[in-house]
Amino acid sequence: MADISLHRPFPASEVKAWDYETDVAVIGFGATGACAAIEAANDGARVMLFERGSGSGGASALSGGEIYIGGGGGTDAQRAAGFEDTTHDFAAYLKAAGGPCADDAKCELYAREALKHYEWLKAQGVPYRGNYLPGKHIEPTDDSTLIWSGSEAAWPFCDLAKPAPRGHVIAHMGWGGGRPLIDLLESRARDLGVQVETDARAVALVQDEAQRVVGAVVRIDNQNLFVRAAKGIVLATGGFVFNEDMRRRYCPETFKISSPIGDQDDGSGIELGVSVGGDAVHMEQFFTTCPWTMPEPQAHGVFVNQAGQRFINEDCYHGRVSRCAIDQLGDRVYLLLDIAHFDQPLEMAGITVAGTGESWEEVEVELEMAPGTLSATMAFYNAQAAEGRDPLFHKRLPILTPLDQGPFVALELNFASSYFSFFTLGGLRTSTDGEVLNRAGVAVPGLFAAGRCTSGLPAWGHGYSSGLSLADCTFFGRQAGKAAAAAK
Amino acid sequence: MADISLHRPFPASEVKAWDYETDVAVIGFGATGACAAIEAANDGARVMLFERGSGSGGASALSGGEIYIGGGGGTDAQRAAGFEDTTHDFAAYLKAAGGPCADDAKCELYAREALKHYEWLKAQGVPYRGNYLPGKHIEPTDDSTLIWSGSEAAWPFCDLAKPAPRGHVIAHMGWGGGRPLIDLLESRARDLGVQVETDARAVALVQDEAQRVVGAVVRIDNQNLFVRAAKGIVLATGGFVFNEDMRRRYCPETFKISSPIGDQDDGSGIELGVSVGGDAVHMEQFFTTCPWTMPEPQAHGVFVNQAGQRFINEDCYHGRVSRCAIDQLGDRVYLLLDIAHFDQPLEMAGITVAGTGESWEEVEVELEMAPGTLSATMAFYNAQAAEGRDPLFHKRLPILTPLDQGPFVALELNFASSYFSFFTLGGLRTSTDGEVLNRAGVAVPGLFAAGRCTSGLPAWGHGYSSGLSLADCTFFGRQAGKAAAAAK
Repeated sequence: MADISLHRPFPASEVKAWDYETDVAVIGFGATGACAAIEAANDGARVMLFERGSGSGGASALSGGEIYIGGGGGTDAQRAAGFEDTTHDFAAYLKAAGGPCADDAKCELYAREALKHYEWLKAQGVPYRGNYLPGKHIEPTDDSTLIWSGSEAAWPFCDLAKPAPRGHVIAHMGWGGGRPLIDLLESRARDLGVQVETDARAVALVQDEAQRVVGAVVRIDNQNLFVRAAKGIVLATGGFVFNEDMRRRYCPETFKISSPIGDQDDGSGIELGVSVGGDAVHMEQFFTTCPWTMPEPQAHGVFVNQAGQRFINEDCYHGRVSRCAIDQLGDRVYLLLDIAHFDQPLEMAGITVAGTGESWEEVEVELEMAPGTLSATMAFYNAQAAEGRDPLFHKRLPILTPLDQGPFVALELNFASSYFSFFTLGGLRTSTDGEVLNRAGVAVPGLFAAGRCTSGLPAWGHGYSSGLSLADCTFFGRQAGKAAAAAK
Repeated sequence: MADISLHRPFPASEVKAWDYETDVAVIGFGATGACAAIEAANDGARVMLFERGSGSGGASALSGGEIYIGGGGGTDAQRAAGFEDTTHDFAAYLKAAGGPCADDAKCELYAREALKHYEWLKAQGVPYRGNYLPGKHIEPTDDSTLIWSGSEAAWPFCDLAKPAPRGHVIAHMGWGGGRPLIDLLESRARDLGVQVETDARAVALVQDEAQRVVGAVVRIDNQNLFVRAAKGIVLATGGFVFNEDMRRRYCPETFKISSPIGDQDDGSGIELGVSVGGDAVHMEQFFTTCPWTMPEPQAHGVFVNQAGQRFINEDCYHGRVSRCAIDQLGDRVYLLLDIAHFDQPLEMAGITVAGTGESWEEVEVELEMAPGTLSATMAFYNAQAAEGRDPLFHKRLPILTPLDQGPFVALELNFASSYFSFFTLGGLRTSTDGEVLNRAGVAVPGLFAAGRCTSGLPAWGHGYSSGLSLADCTFFGRQAGKAAAAAK
């Protein structure tokens, strides 16, 4: 008998008996898999969902439950807060956020469809309070809906698309809205008759002689069971942040930092897709952030590298600032604050006090930087900020604050020892319908994918914005589910 | 009949008749293919070599014919010039040059074997004058052998490995030693009975039912001909710099710059390798350089980005400086010079004069930078350089020159319009014997590869050094040829 391998499809001709038969088999029960299953079931397909963990969740359940939504004149929450968000601006921002890795077709489709997607989410039972919470927040600490969750108002994004807040958060008191979001989607899927098998790990795809994916091999109770999927398989298995071997081969910059986040994201879906000819793209891309904007006054700080130079407009999304930080020479950057904006950093952030002083010259000495480096940077910054400008990096008011009243403090964000959480963004190349494409750009028959096992809306680490990944997972998960249900 | 495709192997069972039968079929006639063919023939195999162009050459023939060699106490040229180069230092440098993408096993093997490889090259008839040419050179303008061709003496490399010059250039008057190098290797291959077919493009691999690569489909005179290779196929087809679609999917940063270099490097060998399960790694990596060290006095210049900040010790290899340049925000960087070090830039470089002045303040105004940016950078640099130090980036003497006697000039290296030549570095993952490895790290039977269709010694754009690619092509080309000839 042929081997069972993530790396090679199992020939359908060698399947002796199918243990399960369904129309659509979804692999992975995070937000992507849930949405794919719901849509496929809605469209009349028999749907099975296989999850390697003991329950639904995936990385989605670890998130804040925030979804990036806008365009079409704005959502209810955007309009109530006075933001008219055009589809044109929304698409332009999505493309800018995707940078050199942007999939323009996905950006354009999602920009057109996001309002309808928002209504769909509500129709599944996802509650939104509908209000706007101004300021800089990683997640709302209350149950507010709309927050600024990216670099929309920061240069250069603000010149490319009219800024609007687009992070839409499930009504849930405090952090952690991802779990209740998944719970709602799970119950919706179960209501629709989706058959869920947990502790069930996909270990191979099954392919027939016409190169069509017709099933999967799933490991349950230490047995390899054969699943026939008459219409298609949807891969929804997440990224590869917990696969060190894959990271070394495709995304080695992540070894600079030490805090992978995810839920068993071992890249198996990517491997399965590639095993039948699927193309994996932008595999070097990753998101990272160190939560430096908390407590909130810290957001007023100025970042410098080990040469005492600024390197970014700090009013960008915290993840963009963090990603640019680890591009700097050396193994750390410093966040400079005056006493008015200093508070104890979050303990979990692993951000330490590296130097203090009555003047920036004193801080410079404590950091063992050459005289006239950090102090000159801050003298220039303060003089310009006092006049409301940042000619170097175009940081904007109101966060453009002179830091000229001591005492001062330099916080150290150390790449190795601070909490730079990260996850991978590269993955299978898919059409806007969630078809897995081969290296010639042609769909692999019978195979669909969405979420972080694909390269989607959050394609570029330097442009990531909160809510992009769940937007991608939920919307393109639905697309994949619909396409699978409609497959001949 | 099955399709003929780069993306899918052709089943051996469907081959009606073999048009050619050989032991080892080498695809591509640059330095890699030539060395593979020579070694396979030397070991008694029947060898055929298929080249899509009308003659030998490939990207190798466009190069300077420089090969990175050292270790083992030093080559004749190194020792005569007083450089004792240990294998330990050589391996350490190779690993540092590979950065996060380094293949340690390849670095270690090559460091151990490089002296023998040098003797082998000589035995093939490659002439070396044996002398050392001090200074900074992209290629010798005479027929000298040994030059500094990387960042060996520059921080941080100089702290990781004792510096030594290791660029060994074929004895050839002036630039362009790559062509005569290939000519010698070609005649050696032909003397050994290698059968060469030109205008012959590999369009598919042939695989048997045991998943072994047993041949290739080669397009000659508009016909698909079937080549049986009893022992193995060696892919030696170069990178993918001329495949815009692949660059967009795997290496999109290259769209910032505009001057691909190579010879029909369309990634076909990578596609062929992947079509039979081969793993392609570090696909986002690329080499680039803008020839800013010519005329030679320009090497004394200081680089700043559009914020007027330095970003690198400019005594690094010109390609490392160029690669770091295009990481900077904006679309250009400036090379600052005083009149003593200014000369007309090479016309081909597309480097223009962006500003001049009697003082750095005047230059700053001409570049429309905020007062106190570039001028402060240069005041600090000059004060430090006058005392022989560069506390920010650790540039070293003798190139650490104060630029404080005007008039001054700022040269513009524009990412889009200057000549930033580039080629890709990512490719198939191979063992040190040149076996193509699948995604599980297991050799694909019957398939070998070397050179720029693989990820090898020059793995990381930020660490590239001249001669690394030809070292990789010639040495690992030989390894692949030997392994193919020995295959069962």
